[in-house]
Amino acid sequence: MKIAIMGFGTVGTGVEEILYKKKESLLKNCFDIEIDRVLIRDKDKKRSPLKSDIVFTDDFDEILNSQVDTVIDVTSSLEETYERIVLLMKAGKNIVTANKAVVSKYFEELNALARENKVYFSYEASVAGAIPVIHPIMEESFFSDMNKIHGILNGTSNYILSKMEVEGSSYADVLKEAQDLGYAEADPTADVGGFDAMRKIRILSSLIYNAKIDEGDIFTFGISNIKKSDFDYAKELGYSIRLIAKSVLSQGKINISVIPTFLKDNFFAKTFDGTNAVKVWGENFSCYEFKGPGAGRLETADAIMRDLLRILSRREINTFYDASNSYEVENNLKSKFYVRTSKVNPGLKELIEEERVLGQDHHIITREINLDELKTVLDDEMFIVEIEGTI
Amino acid sequence: MKIAIMGFGTVGTGVEEILYKKKESLLKNCFDIEIDRVLIRDKDKKRSPLKSDIVFTDDFDEILNSQVDTVIDVTSSLEETYERIVLLMKAGKNIVTANKAVVSKYFEELNALARENKVYFSYEASVAGAIPVIHPIMEESFFSDMNKIHGILNGTSNYILSKMEVEGSSYADVLKEAQDLGYAEADPTADVGGFDAMRKIRILSSLIYNAKIDEGDIFTFGISNIKKSDFDYAKELGYSIRLIAKSVLSQGKINISVIPTFLKDNFFAKTFDGTNAVKVWGENFSCYEFKGPGAGRLETADAIMRDLLRILSRREINTFYDASNSYEVENNLKSKFYVRTSKVNPGLKELIEEERVLGQDHHIITREINLDELKTVLDDEMFIVEIEGTI
Repeated sequence: MKIAIMGFGTVGTGVEEILYKKKESLLKNCFDIEIDRVLIRDKDKKRSPLKSDIVFTDDFDEILNSQVDTVIDVTSSLEETYERIVLLMKAGKNIVTANKAVVSKYFEELNALARENKVYFSYEASVAGAIPVIHPIMEESFFSDMNKIHGILNGTSNYILSKMEVEGSSYADVLKEAQDLGYAEADPTADVGGFDAMRKIRILSSLIYNAKIDEGDIFTFGISNIKKSDFDYAKELGYSIRLIAKSVLSQGKINISVIPTFLKDNFFAKTFDGTNAVKVWGENFSCYEFKGPGAGRLETADAIMRDLLRILSRREINTFYDASNSYEVENNLKSKFYVRTSKVNPGLKELIEEERVLGQDHHIITREINLDELKTVLDDEMFIVEIEGTI
Repeated sequence: MKIAIMGFGTVGTGVEEILYKKKESLLKNCFDIEIDRVLIRDKDKKRSPLKSDIVFTDDFDEILNSQVDTVIDVTSSLEETYERIVLLMKAGKNIVTANKAVVSKYFEELNALARENKVYFSYEASVAGAIPVIHPIMEESFFSDMNKIHGILNGTSNYILSKMEVEGSSYADVLKEAQDLGYAEADPTADVGGFDAMRKIRILSSLIYNAKIDEGDIFTFGISNIKKSDFDYAKELGYSIRLIAKSVLSQGKINISVIPTFLKDNFFAKTFDGTNAVKVWGENFSCYEFKGPGAGRLETADAIMRDLLRILSRREINTFYDASNSYEVENNLKSKFYVRTSKVNPGLKELIEEERVLGQDHHIITREINLDELKTVLDDEMFIVEIEGTI
């Protein structure tokens, strides 16, 4: 069994390491896997694969024209990778990808293309790292309607929030620390802006509702405006703050958002550091909770391995996602919100239930409103938090 | 696709309900499943399947000689069911079972027999109800060594413990309530004595270590001796009490036990009612946590459905468990223990670090010992608890 890998960064080397270190155990289970070649951008960069004779190439066509039937994608580019996956599927190659940006943006196209070309399209590693969540949910969807899913889906922002909460540090300090440790990118926008979590809740939600959801329809508010004083306020009320991605299908409409949330719920509030957590509700089982490492070299490689072995042994689920359901997205669930702002605009003024002024900042608790209403009064310097359980 | 079901109690009717209610969705995904016949003990008992023309029989040979290739076992007997599964496998039929007593006692025999007869042997429903734990762990075991697993694996005893803790009720009252609600059997020994949890930790541990473990080697201590005063003592120290099944493989030896445990750990301590929880440690992913309903009609049927659909679509994992590893069981991990007893025997006296006498009862904290030492001083009226994190 020959495979190819596109990308040889953190996760790519993790895949190579597991394949190398577990060769014997894999062989025992009839998996004789060889990396045919690895696509990289810079051929001159020094690399140290464990298997010294790995073939590197910077020519995508070599992968496309190779005899491998499965390609692992651990790149991070969006459009280029999408176009390459399309070519690979058309050439009859199965795809295992960790690239959540591609999976989220082109979920319908790639699933349809996989079906047309009779290849497998697997993306366990694109959501919640090593936690086995995508595949169990796929299986479940054959016979159990799931109507709600919540998650802490971005390790970087959870690291920042839980550090700020536990250590009382400032946002800037913790972000810097996270960047120094390699937990956060030099440009952290995708993580702290909520966009990474948005992509993941789009994937999970589309999967359980079998319906297309446009990224742009997901209310997405990140943590980059957060201050220590927000934690002080939360603590006074007995709350933790976590960035929660949530969606619920009810009466033919989907409410879906990524938003900082005050919560007392032990499961999410007790999720610390880079850990991810997912809670899914279904008709046969009330709810499950999953928790585990949301990212990391071997952790993400682990999820890729699960997909890979299922594909190689023809045990994978053939793409069933066809977006045959169609639901409107509408964020009209009532809740109270916390808003911190230095200037109260007239629209916000209308929504206030409680207000406290500390220095420059107005700390506001709104009356019961919904996200669609709140959206109309937002401005760039505000920080907002949904207050769980206030309805 | 025709299947047979052995047993039509709580879980059997749940399977029938899902197959009936989800017929359309299953058909859409190419699963045209028909229940060929259902084995029951008493043909005269009135039954109300949703599909009115279900064929019931009290003759096992009708199942054995039928054309079905997969049989779902939701019986609760031990030896009789084992013998029947053997006959069915020899006749080339795949087995999906929820019967943890059979799976635990005959794990090696049944896996070997499945391999010999080239049939699938699936038992997701035998551990932790609806939580998808067995199958992800099986997949993981191909390429990630797992060396430790802890769980709350018995819903009935967790229901009793968390009710006693939250409501301050007596053991007898809560047990009676659980029996009235159908959460506990008329004879609750298997649940409150720890034997059900013992079977489940045996299955999980054997699976991750690929090694036989004799049920009799598992130190098993249940909750039937517990009193309100034990919760008072625990609360004073800031602990919850849960019945934890645990095993760890280290230096070629397995420590494995089921024992009431004082814990501050949020994951297990915050597991209430009949919920089950599993935490597994592995080399690629530090640890995962799973939580969800541990039993119930549709919940257990849900786990059966997952196995069934994998088998029918030939996506199931072929039995890989061959117990090819061999490890000694030895409960020699040091910990402090809480012991409550009305009479302190000379052996126990040697182990005391702290003692408080309240009425008839001696509440004792031992010095650091191991379970093998503690075992030698146990008697029937004692209640013991391991104190987590005391080493």
